[in-house]
Amino acid sequence: MLLLVWTLLNAVSGLKADDGGMVEELVTEKEAEESHRQDSVNLLTFISLLTLTILTIWLFKHRRVRFLHETGLAMIYGLLVGVILRYGIPATSYHNKTPPSCSLKEGPSSTLLLNVSGKFFEYTLKGEISFREIHNVEQNDMLRKVTFDPEVFFNILLPPIIFHAGYSLKKRHFFRNLGSIITYAFLGTAVSCFVIGNLMYGVVKLMRAVGQLTEKFYYTDCLFFGAIISATDPVTVLAIFNELHADGDLYALLFGESVMNDAVAIVLSSSIMAYQPAGANTHMFDASAFFKSVGIFLGIFSGSFVMGAATGVVTALISCSFTKLHCFPLLETALFFLMSWSTFLLAEACGFTGVVAVLFCGITQAHYTCNNLSEESTKRTKQLFEVLHFLAENFIFSYMGLALFTFQKHIFSPIFIIGAFVAIFIGRALNIYPLSFLLNLGRRDKIRGNFQHMMMFAGLRGAMAFALAIRDTATSARQMMFTTTLLIVFFTVWVFGGGTTPMLSWLHISKTKQESAWLFRLWYTFDHNYLKPILTHSGPPLTSTLPSYCGPLASCLTSPRAYEQLRDPDTDLIHNDADLTFTFGDTAITANGASTSRADATGGLGWSTNGKRSGSTSEEALERELDSREQELLSRGTRLVFPMEDHI
Amino acid sequence: MLLLVWTLLNAVSGLKADDGGMVEELVTEKEAEESHRQDSVNLLTFISLLTLTILTIWLFKHRRVRFLHETGLAMIYGLLVGVILRYGIPATSYHNKTPPSCSLKEGPSSTLLLNVSGKFFEYTLKGEISFREIHNVEQNDMLRKVTFDPEVFFNILLPPIIFHAGYSLKKRHFFRNLGSIITYAFLGTAVSCFVIGNLMYGVVKLMRAVGQLTEKFYYTDCLFFGAIISATDPVTVLAIFNELHADGDLYALLFGESVMNDAVAIVLSSSIMAYQPAGANTHMFDASAFFKSVGIFLGIFSGSFVMGAATGVVTALISCSFTKLHCFPLLETALFFLMSWSTFLLAEACGFTGVVAVLFCGITQAHYTCNNLSEESTKRTKQLFEVLHFLAENFIFSYMGLALFTFQKHIFSPIFIIGAFVAIFIGRALNIYPLSFLLNLGRRDKIRGNFQHMMMFAGLRGAMAFALAIRDTATSARQMMFTTTLLIVFFTVWVFGGGTTPMLSWLHISKTKQESAWLFRLWYTFDHNYLKPILTHSGPPLTSTLPSYCGPLASCLTSPRAYEQLRDPDTDLIHNDADLTFTFGDTAITANGASTSRADATGGLGWSTNGKRSGSTSEEALERELDSREQELLSRGTRLVFPMEDHI
Repeated sequence: MLLLVWTLLNAVSGLKADDGGMVEELVTEKEAEESHRQDSVNLLTFISLLTLTILTIWLFKHRRVRFLHETGLAMIYGLLVGVILRYGIPATSYHNKTPPSCSLKEGPSSTLLLNVSGKFFEYTLKGEISFREIHNVEQNDMLRKVTFDPEVFFNILLPPIIFHAGYSLKKRHFFRNLGSIITYAFLGTAVSCFVIGNLMYGVVKLMRAVGQLTEKFYYTDCLFFGAIISATDPVTVLAIFNELHADGDLYALLFGESVMNDAVAIVLSSSIMAYQPAGANTHMFDASAFFKSVGIFLGIFSGSFVMGAATGVVTALISCSFTKLHCFPLLETALFFLMSWSTFLLAEACGFTGVVAVLFCGITQAHYTCNNLSEESTKRTKQLFEVLHFLAENFIFSYMGLALFTFQKHIFSPIFIIGAFVAIFIGRALNIYPLSFLLNLGRRDKIRGNFQHMMMFAGLRGAMAFALAIRDTATSARQMMFTTTLLIVFFTVWVFGGGTTPMLSWLHISKTKQESAWLFRLWYTFDHNYLKPILTHSGPPLTSTLPSYCGPLASCLTSPRAYEQLRDPDTDLIHNDADLTFTFGDTAITANGASTSRADATGGLGWSTNGKRSGSTSEEALERELDSREQELLSRGTRLVFPMEDHI
Repeated sequence: MLLLVWTLLNAVSGLKADDGGMVEELVTEKEAEESHRQDSVNLLTFISLLTLTILTIWLFKHRRVRFLHETGLAMIYGLLVGVILRYGIPATSYHNKTPPSCSLKEGPSSTLLLNVSGKFFEYTLKGEISFREIHNVEQNDMLRKVTFDPEVFFNILLPPIIFHAGYSLKKRHFFRNLGSIITYAFLGTAVSCFVIGNLMYGVVKLMRAVGQLTEKFYYTDCLFFGAIISATDPVTVLAIFNELHADGDLYALLFGESVMNDAVAIVLSSSIMAYQPAGANTHMFDASAFFKSVGIFLGIFSGSFVMGAATGVVTALISCSFTKLHCFPLLETALFFLMSWSTFLLAEACGFTGVVAVLFCGITQAHYTCNNLSEESTKRTKQLFEVLHFLAENFIFSYMGLALFTFQKHIFSPIFIIGAFVAIFIGRALNIYPLSFLLNLGRRDKIRGNFQHMMMFAGLRGAMAFALAIRDTATSARQMMFTTTLLIVFFTVWVFGGGTTPMLSWLHISKTKQESAWLFRLWYTFDHNYLKPILTHSGPPLTSTLPSYCGPLASCLTSPRAYEQLRDPDTDLIHNDADLTFTFGDTAITANGASTSRADATGGLGWSTNGKRSGSTSEEALERELDSREQELLSRGTRLVFPMEDHI
């Protein structure tokens, strides 16, 4: 492995030496070429890291090593390369000159023209840099070059990760625990954010008292830190859950919480950034500014939600109306990919949060569009996003490892770091235990003590916290936060991630039987009777679920294939190439719908009858449906690669 | 469709209106945000275009419309959006000010610091712009924004297209016609380049004579134009060939030529750029500069070739030694993807041409690595690159349509355009007919007249010509070339692409029987006996093909699975889930190898015996192998989406 890294480094130094000869070329062309080569080398470094990670993961999987997840491994490799880049390469720069500087009276604009003896050159703004860094530019060009634009994380790496999370949500357990997940994600993250923010504000005051802090560090900065560090990412824990087939409900709680709180944290942090009180002293409480922030939070969140869900629905409608698209899986897959990506862009273009929109788009796609896709395309899209997610996640984690040594603006403040570790522990505790207590008051199957301890333990921080922290490292407060976030991610992924297996056996967590929640039942009835028939070819025809006076509209909206299913309820089973025999929940419900529609024809009281009937039978039917859906996934012959995505 | 475009435009204008309110924010932040939104809207425009293209293609495929290929369609949609952007939006800019400018005495560097009252801002060089454009910046900001960095084409869009072309080369017909393909690609492209270059130089002289040209236009510029326009891309023709199951050899000749001449053209054009005679008058012939260019051509081409093939071989070795990687198709796919990408980056980092390296990497991967991948991964990688290729190709073609109206520096010169159309016709004719005549002297199965006419007709220009032309549009000569290239692509794709079906029936082209070429036989024997056993698990063990004194080395290099195959030659057949029965060429050869190795043990004259035996039986065996390989592809149950990729 070191050999590979060494080769890379040689390539880098080779480039430096290579460049001396071509003096006749223009400086600009030469520098552009050099910068392009440098970019190639940087990317190559990461790709080699990922390759190494993959080969080592394979070794680990082969030997059933569970204490270190691939993300942890990626971080270790990143760290090693970071150390080599930092200490292995002489600090001299091949640049060898301070960049030229010019002065203007007006504020900076995005474009600047440079006039060199009549020729004009166009420059684009990269950002503000402090006076201290100007010399760093000179000295550590190599280290600086390995740094990516933070927006790369938000626009390229996070979307596939988050989309995949939404797309692979296991609906059964997710919707069963929807209320609890939303409580943990919204209320829990808010609690965690405010607890951590206030505790850190105490820490900051302490630091100022002992003379460890001289620069500005406002209350809003502390709250911002609370927001970014509240996004949990128990990827390691969940992978082990899957391998050990641990409890499905606990999995859903943890996975659902982590997926949703990523969305909450990202919107929360931008709302806090938008919190700008009228006075100069920005750590005072200002009611109007506070409500403005709350309004921004609600606006961005609901806007992103609506946008994501809407694109998902549009895709479902397109794939539903272009039925013969089935015959061209490549077109279907491409369409699916483009529509999912356009959600992100549409949200960003409208000023909402693309990542959040993509999450809800993923959930909607998995729920509706997937039913309309051909079997081939379902597999293709799943695999496509699986690969993208895998590459993006491991890239981020190896970049984290690299950043610890190569990032130029680290501020290691022991008091702040210790304070942060204590604060996230307290924040997590005040999130999980009180909310679990409250939730248990309303839940039929309580969240038991060992589950609560496991959730407490699984508060790992990961890609989202890192991406939020690196987004803005302009002030020293933000730099301190970034360093601390990095250390927290390292510690939690390695220590808590590695300790999952012993913890699970210590807490005696295994599979348990579950019941459905009322929120789920309510949603299921609405979804099954109205949304599915419109957006997909499955489910009962609308003519049987809508009141009789809506007859013409209903028959217009119902897909002809829904009737086909009524006529021949066994067709679906014929398509299955596995030997498993099971009844399709949908078919059962369809039969039920058919009998109701017959009652409808005789009595005209279809709606209320149907409403009650589906209410009374829904519980069994939906259990069957969800069961069969999951078995179906298994029976389709997809090899289970990372059990996390395919089956709980 | 227009509705969608309209929505987009509204979104754009909405953004403009939206922005006025937030005056308290910093100009930089606001501009960065604005630019981010703008980027999102631009990408969204293209994604909507692609979505529309996909839906229309589906309609066309569904109704078996063959006269317009998806790429032609993408161009039409691009054109429409271009017209709307150009004429539908008022030309006022929301920027409303000329960018500030500052003066320096020294030449431009890649980084510039701006000092605004003590605060330093960092700017990166975008490129030189002429004085005329500074005002364009002001006026047509919207149109300008929709323009991508040309390097995007080379670094993001072309690699998957070219890799896929290499990866999906049908080995049977490709290697059978290897000699002819190389002749057309190297000699033919060189002939075409020089013919077109010289003719265009005449046209340029004519233009100067009639006063149509006042700016500089050197002989090297003409040659450069010859190089970029010599890259053929008969994607439309080949798609129809597939659908109609036209002659396999003709397909191989056309596809092979187009794939290889892309590589030749890209290297040729950069060699011509490097041609800088010592004197000031750069259109004089300078022997040393000429030979330097030839040297550069050979250096870059062979370097890229070696690099691509080497990475392919390394991947094959990795996938061969990590045999249990089979159980984790995700890891395998990710590894395959990363290794292929690293070829590109490695070549770029070393100063070679990434696109060319990727082509040869694709060919090597298809030949060796594919044998080591699990069935699941073979399908996955195929589908992954299929989707990437599809998206990238259609993106480029819709961008071409868009560029006709939105590109700011078009120079429409009627004489030049007419001259270019005549020149590419003559260039193509002087490439195909004389070379076919020469090739027919040596070929057993001649390239018949109707094939030659079809090849002449199939000289479509596409993505590569466009990408090479847009790479540098600094001088007016280059701008004229770019405009002309665009028009040539439009014309050839629509007219020649649309006329393929009538042309095929007019020329009476159907399937014919073929024989193997000597070059192919030579290569096959070496490859089958030595390379395949080392790099894959198939083929005879090295112990039977290497001379006996190499015994220890041979048994060390031979994979244990090769012996397993010997013991149980039917295992491969069991894995097949289709009902087709056929014999595996490999198995037959293995049995042959086994008997030879027995002879080896008794006589010790293994090498010469084996050499002769495999020589005498190779023809039948390789026919069988290639046949079964293709049948296998069919029998694996992959639905044939675009027949082009899967089967001739």
